[in-house]
Amino acid sequence: MSDVRETTAEANSFRDTDGEIWPSVVERATRAIQAGDGEDLRDLVADLHEADVGSLLEALQPDDRPRLISLLGKNFDFTALTEVDDTVREEILEELSNDEVAEGVRDLDVDDAVYILEDLDHSDQAEILEKLPALERIALQRGLDYPEDSAGRRMQTDCIAVPPFWSVRQTVDYIRDTPDLPDTFYEVFIVDPAHRLLGAVPLDKLMRARWGDRIDSIATEDHQRVHATDDQENVALLMQRYNLVSVPVVDDSERLVGVMMVDDIVDVLDEEADEDLKALGGVKADEELSDSVWYTVKGRFPWLFANLLTALISASVIDTFEASIQAMVALAVLMPIVASMGGNAGTQTMTVTVRAIATRQLGRANAWRVIRREMTVGLMNGLGFALLLGTMAALWSGVPGLGVIIGLALMIVLTAAAVGGILIPLALHRLKIDPAVSSGPFVTTVTDVIGFFSFLGIATLWLSRS
Amino acid sequence: MSDVRETTAEANSFRDTDGEIWPSVVERATRAIQAGDGEDLRDLVADLHEADVGSLLEALQPDDRPRLISLLGKNFDFTALTEVDDTVREEILEELSNDEVAEGVRDLDVDDAVYILEDLDHSDQAEILEKLPALERIALQRGLDYPEDSAGRRMQTDCIAVPPFWSVRQTVDYIRDTPDLPDTFYEVFIVDPAHRLLGAVPLDKLMRARWGDRIDSIATEDHQRVHATDDQENVALLMQRYNLVSVPVVDDSERLVGVMMVDDIVDVLDEEADEDLKALGGVKADEELSDSVWYTVKGRFPWLFANLLTALISASVIDTFEASIQAMVALAVLMPIVASMGGNAGTQTMTVTVRAIATRQLGRANAWRVIRREMTVGLMNGLGFALLLGTMAALWSGVPGLGVIIGLALMIVLTAAAVGGILIPLALHRLKIDPAVSSGPFVTTVTDVIGFFSFLGIATLWLSRS
Repeated sequence: MSDVRETTAEANSFRDTDGEIWPSVVERATRAIQAGDGEDLRDLVADLHEADVGSLLEALQPDDRPRLISLLGKNFDFTALTEVDDTVREEILEELSNDEVAEGVRDLDVDDAVYILEDLDHSDQAEILEKLPALERIALQRGLDYPEDSAGRRMQTDCIAVPPFWSVRQTVDYIRDTPDLPDTFYEVFIVDPAHRLLGAVPLDKLMRARWGDRIDSIATEDHQRVHATDDQENVALLMQRYNLVSVPVVDDSERLVGVMMVDDIVDVLDEEADEDLKALGGVKADEELSDSVWYTVKGRFPWLFANLLTALISASVIDTFEASIQAMVALAVLMPIVASMGGNAGTQTMTVTVRAIATRQLGRANAWRVIRREMTVGLMNGLGFALLLGTMAALWSGVPGLGVIIGLALMIVLTAAAVGGILIPLALHRLKIDPAVSSGPFVTTVTDVIGFFSFLGIATLWLSRS
Repeated sequence: MSDVRETTAEANSFRDTDGEIWPSVVERATRAIQAGDGEDLRDLVADLHEADVGSLLEALQPDDRPRLISLLGKNFDFTALTEVDDTVREEILEELSNDEVAEGVRDLDVDDAVYILEDLDHSDQAEILEKLPALERIALQRGLDYPEDSAGRRMQTDCIAVPPFWSVRQTVDYIRDTPDLPDTFYEVFIVDPAHRLLGAVPLDKLMRARWGDRIDSIATEDHQRVHATDDQENVALLMQRYNLVSVPVVDDSERLVGVMMVDDIVDVLDEEADEDLKALGGVKADEELSDSVWYTVKGRFPWLFANLLTALISASVIDTFEASIQAMVALAVLMPIVASMGGNAGTQTMTVTVRAIATRQLGRANAWRVIRREMTVGLMNGLGFALLLGTMAALWSGVPGLGVIIGLALMIVLTAAAVGGILIPLALHRLKIDPAVSSGPFVTTVTDVIGFFSFLGIATLWLSRS
């Protein structure tokens, strides 16, 4: 990996070559906060991008975070709070007074303000909204009324809309002369008198069009649109699939109500991948590095508990074969190998399956082909490891029969792992249960039980025969 | 989750509510291909977005994919090949003649053409390049000369650059009058006579500026830039962090050579998250659903082999305590529970750590705080499960001492899992080894060995005393 060190002077003094914030910056900020030195703090933060202020907040000790904001006062840009972990934001907001929060979100874009306020409890939300001017209050309230994780919550509500009969020149003049336009925009939207969306014109196309042309004559055909109640994840996948930088958002009557911007979508996609990854690792989707110990313990306990139940089932399988183990302790030594190989092979298949479901690459159209492929892979790896481990076990124990037994068990468990690793996530998905969260314990149970049962079962048959 | 069904008419007839391609579409395409019916195929594909054509290709049987392209001939847009899995693309390109490929990439943007050609072997690459007109050949060759996964490989080489002394009007006129400009652009760049980058002006700002102003007077201050040799992942993190839709790319002499666009960056971020997720699940970063059985077997074997070594180490630990197991078979029944709890707790911590390292949220500035937190979490969960499992084991076996032993072992292994789960990825990262790929086997070895050793060790001490 090369580095982005020299990308800007700021990146140089704020972040190291790896993109990590310099410890010295954190130390300076901590000193300034503890000395109550608002001036030094302002010097430090003044030229920083909101994303860097966010990173700095996260790197500080929890107690110092709200103090930084209070010390900076009007010099603190609340947009930085959209760049930090949810837990960090909630903790900070709890420490700030409702007056401070109301003052801070007042000048923000609606989507940023909604993002900051949405996780507060309703009484705080109501109190803060009351402190705002009527116009802002109404806009924020409307944003908060959309369902959680919907496009309506995350969209920019300011957008440029013009009637279809305007000329290119009229549109350009309008953009140039109207003072109250959104900060950033990549498209101009065309709407009818009822504000229903008719089409969209990207800025680069608008700039290169003939002045006299009607604006609707240069609109993009079949332009994508999404509904305010659509799930953010679906909107994100749509924008990613069709390489969109912005997409208009309409209400149930097809009226233009806002626009989703690509930078928000990047964060949504990132969150989704993050959630899947954490879910597969057995931690709650929203677990963050900044969570409290108690919150983390509570979050991880259920998964460990599910694993305990799985392990107890396995133990009861082993218990059934106590007599065989008593007769041949080597079985106890070798049995964890079989279970562990099965568990890992199952996890491999499950990981690929969960990811393919999330990215919509695995569906009815190709499920059978993929299942057959996974079974073949399981069988082949099973054969390879059966030979390898079977030989080793036979040599180690001096009992050739034991090599055959562990080889057979391994082939059974690796094939079962392949089948379970793909069918379990697919079935959960069909039942509308998130496969990333729930597949793990089921797959492990299947591979453990089949692993122990096949190895100890075959061994018992063999022992009883000889 | 709501749906995006009604977003467009195309989405309706091509994809279901979940964003998956309809099986009926795949069937129709398959029928047309097998009947050699180019006309029906053209009807089906004509109005599809390149991303949808890509999805269709992936959903087809491998043999049908190159046949679809040959049947469509000039009506097939090679851009669709940038939207499919690497394996699918490679298989298709192998089946097509170099003439067909040269014809297909000829009219593509340089970045798309580079993306398609970069994985071909050198002799094919050279042969295809030779068939292209000089100008395109040189542009492609330059792209291919940049290191793999660098910004230079993925950047759009067309961009709009103007001198600093031009007025806003001159710049707008230039954009309007020059025929050969890039298809899509969000910024105009300012360069000196040696084409060194001086600044950038976003289109929306340009449109709203006074005609007479000098273009450099409205340039964004401290504009981010990246180098052509920078790693794509770092560029992607930079663009995500600062919410950029495009970022200029410069060479070693700070000359403007291209621009990275956000839609490419979305794909890079997605790939990175994907790689981490797969690596943690023990599959190769580039494993895809469309890989052949043999490729998949080869990819998964090494990880299963690493796991076998781990399991053998655990087995040898168990072997040491054979006498104790012989004396008390209940130990064999319970020992997998301890190891499995440790393995899962270690995976939880490791998952959070790996993700935090990848997103640059865990570094020197906060490592100690996080390590302390994880140890506390491990101890607390250890205590909880020690009480729970200890009681269960005592009741089940009727031997109270066994409950104490398993409780103690569980506390030791869960604390060790927390420490190992965070220190191992951090150490690997410090050694410049990708923690997502390599942490798993190490963490499992630590938790297995400590789990078996502490449980069987304490039990042996206890057995020898009583």
